[in-house]
This record gives sequence, structure tokens and C-alpha cells, in this order.
Amino acid sequence: MIIGGAEDRTDDKEVLQKFIALAGGVAQPIIVITAASKVPEDVWAMYETAFVAIGVENVTHVSISSRAEADDDMLAHKVAQARGIFMTGGDQKRLVTFLGGTQLERAMRRAYSDNGACIAGTSAGASGMCTHMLAEGRADLAPEKGAVRLGAGLGFVSRVIIDQHFSQRHRLNRLLSAIAQSPFLLGAGIDEDTALIVQDGGIEVAGHGSVTVVDCRQSQTNIADVAAGVAPQMLDVRLHLLPSGSGISSADDAGPLADFIHYLTDRTLEHEHR
Amino acid sequence: MIIGGAEDRTDDKEVLQKFIALAGGVAQPIIVITAASKVPEDVWAMYETAFVAIGVENVTHVSISSRAEADDDMLAHKVAQARGIFMTGGDQKRLVTFLGGTQLERAMRRAYSDNGACIAGTSAGASGMCTHMLAEGRADLAPEKGAVRLGAGLGFVSRVIIDQHFSQRHRLNRLLSAIAQSPFLLGAGIDEDTALIVQDGGIEVAGHGSVTVVDCRQSQTNIADVAAGVAPQMLDVRLHLLPSGSGISSADDAGPLADFIHYLTDRTLEHEHR
Repeated sequence: MIIGGAEDRTDDKEVLQKFIALAGGVAQPIIVITAASKVPEDVWAMYETAFVAIGVENVTHVSISSRAEADDDMLAHKVAQARGIFMTGGDQKRLVTFLGGTQLERAMRRAYSDNGACIAGTSAGASGMCTHMLAEGRADLAPEKGAVRLGAGLGFVSRVIIDQHFSQRHRLNRLLSAIAQSPFLLGAGIDEDTALIVQDGGIEVAGHGSVTVVDCRQSQTNIADVAAGVAPQMLDVRLHLLPSGSGISSADDAGPLADFIHYLTDRTLEHEHR
Repeated sequence: MIIGGAEDRTDDKEVLQKFIALAGGVAQPIIVITAASKVPEDVWAMYETAFVAIGVENVTHVSISSRAEADDDMLAHKVAQARGIFMTGGDQKRLVTFLGGTQLERAMRRAYSDNGACIAGTSAGASGMCTHMLAEGRADLAPEKGAVRLGAGLGFVSRVIIDQHFSQRHRLNRLLSAIAQSPFLLGAGIDEDTALIVQDGGIEVAGHGSVTVVDCRQSQTNIADVAAGVAPQMLDVRLHLLPSGSGISSADDAGPLADFIHYLTDRTLEHEHR
């Protein structure tokens, strides 16, 4: 479950309610990982209030601020038993630095593969799920060569780069900057209070915004020839706009989104840091 | 010459310099039409200063605030002799209401066809050039059914809807809202301080931003089935990003932009209001 940040936590809580439903309901064990945040206690207090209001009976805060803490046997055992694991916002670089290749990361994969746990990330937690993570950078008025930096993410999602707060922060040019130089990757921009749910070979969009899929595989661009900081020409960029409520049950039926579905469903959680 | 608004008038004046060059240089007669503006004298003062600084010797203000004023023989004669005609910003509905179908409009066409005059419009002046004019409306976070209203424009540009202040005001969703229901039209979003120049069977982008061409002709959308105010699903929207300096000399060489070039060059100034 890939969430674009700023999901409602006080009113309808639609995205969080959906997360709990995907985790099997309010009686199931839920983990909240705040490693991305520099104010983990504040973030935890907010989610604790929200999940308790939803009726969740068993929610545990995992506050990690070093790799050593993420390599704890007891913690890994607990996380592997969870049915819902939620990574909060903050800084995706921080999240990946502390979790990548640790017992905690492996426990998340076990929870997913063995228990069918729902792995969710919002904002930084969403970006951090990618193999090729949009780490930082901005491109306000046009895509720019070199405007963004990629980093190695947790690898829960492969061949797709996620960006979040997408429409609210006008990030199409930032995402285009990233994939213009890696056009074999697809881009997915997730709006605030919106979730892209990957399940059972298909996808669904929930919440109050849209998911924008950006495909440059057929594009013609001069980005290889322009200087850093310059806006490249880009022809034949393809956009697919999926508002909340959109659902595609399998790659077979997905037309121009077949590869997007295929990448998300076939390879999810594949790129483990061994 | 289709300008996205806020072209520089005090420093390098690149777009205005280009306009004067296309009009044949500083000795040629230039007309500034402020009909779109409710403060025509202020707007004229700004352009007068800018054009005088460039060295223009013969620039005339045409201030029109009624159709009767635009149906004046003497004025039409003067405008038909011009080599450069510049329509300022303001409100495109105002511009079209006062000019459409008048002697002044016909004189502009004569100046173009008989003298090779450069017809320029910035901001509202750019929008107003279209046959199908984006009159008003907004769509901030996603395209929305019914978010924008089209109006009948001056018809200097056909089969292409122009939007302006494009990247600065984040208007991709607004332009998509317009063409989603009229996918036989192409969209062109012009950034501030940027000009799309149509000349000699080709196009060129000048200034400091980009031109974004939006093509929904191959798109699949459910817009016909959703309610007003709802974000439609849109698959296979094609974008073409042309930064300043881009030039395409003919439709034959334009690949995915062939029709865009063809529409602009073959039909320019065709849809006269008789």
C-alpha cells in the first residue's frame, strides 16, 4: 500500500481504515515504523490516536534511529508476526539508511510472504519502498537534467519510481527529471490522502486524490546531450491518470498499464538487500 | 507569436525583441492592442516604455472598449498597414467580445496576409487567438469534468487550445480538462516569458520557459460517464515538452508533433468571423 502522504488521520481516515482492513481487521497486530522521522514520538502519538480511534487493539511503535536497533532478534520476531506494517513519513534517506539490509527489513518481507501482511508506506515511507528511490531534488517549471538524485531504496517495489505529495507539490517535472534519464523505469506520482494498493495481481486507487503514471519508454529526448540544469526536450511522454476508485484487476486487462501492473505485482518485495 | 504572459519588459526583453525582429525591425509600424485589459492606459505605458527602449520608432496604442470603436475605417486602415500587432493581457473574453468580427479583426488578417505582419498575443492575448478559446476555469489537483469553459476566440489558431502562465500556474490539469472532452483538439501550454513562434511552415520556442503540447487523441477516458466536478480516468495522454531553443522546421520532420505543426501552420488565421 503506497500512500502519497498527508492521509487523513482525524476525520474519515479512509486510507488508514483501508490499511487496517487489508491487514485483516482491528484485532490483528499492527506495527508503526517511524524511522524516517526525526520526531518519532510525535509521529507515533498521531498514529496511535488514529489507530485507536479506528478500534485497533494491538498496535506497536517501532522507533529506530540506528542500524543496530534494526538488527534486534526480538524486534524482528515481533515484526515478522505482524499483519500490518506502516512506515511513516520523514526523510526516505533516513528510513533506508537505518532499515536497509537489517533483520527488521527481512522480518517485513517474512511478514508479507508468510502472513500476507500489508506493507504500507506514506510520504517518505512510500518513496523508500522503491528499488530506485527518488531521494531528493526539485524541478519546478520544467524537467531538468540532474535535478533529482536517486538512491538505493528498500526494494519492495521494482522498476517503478514513486513520488508522493504529487499534485499538491506539483511534482510532475521532478518525476519526469528522474525517469527521463532512466526511461526503462516507470514513474508513479501519488497524491496526498491517496493510496495505490497492489494486491492479488492487480491495483486499486483509494482515498481522495489520483495516481499519475508516467511512461517515457517511447519518448524521444535530447537529455543525454544537454548540460546539467538545462530543460531537455521530451517528446511522447505518456501519462495515465487514475483517480480514486480506479481499479485494474490484472495485467491482462490493463492495456497501456499492463507493464505497470506487471512490474508492481510480479516483482513486489523481490529486491532484498542480502 | 503566442506568448505565455509575463514576458520580460524591463531587462533582456528577449521575447519583445524577437517580436520586433519578426515585424521587420525597429523602423516598422507596430500596433499595441490593449482591448483585453481594464487598465489599458497602464498597460500601454508599460509596453510603450519597453518598445521605445528597444528602439522602436513607430508604435501606436489601439485602445478599444466597445465593438463600435473596433469598426472604425481609419483605425482599420492603419492596422492593416502595420508590420507588428501585439495583443496584451487582461481577460480573453473581453478581447474577443470587442474585436471578433469587426473591421479591426479583419484588418489584422489583412496585415498578416498582405504584409506578412507578425500577429502576437500574450496571456489573454494568446488564449484569445484560438478558434476554441479556453475562456476560464481551474482544475488544481486533477483534471475535472466541466472545470473549464471554452468560448469562441478570434480563430487565428485552429484545432489547438492555448493556455498560458502554464508551468507557473500549474495549468496542466486545466488544459487536460479542456481537451479531455474535445480530444480532436491539441493543447499547447505556454510558460511565462516564453513564445511559440509559428512561421514558414515550422515552429520555434523562444524566451525562458517551455511549451508543453498535450495530445489526448489516443487516450482512453471515462469522462463521458463521470459526473461534473469528478476527476476522470485518463490513459495514454501524450505530452511533448519543448524548452526554449526548440525548433521544428516542417511537419514532415516533426514525428509525433507533425499534426501540431500542421494545424498551426496550415490553418493559421483561417477561421475568420465573417
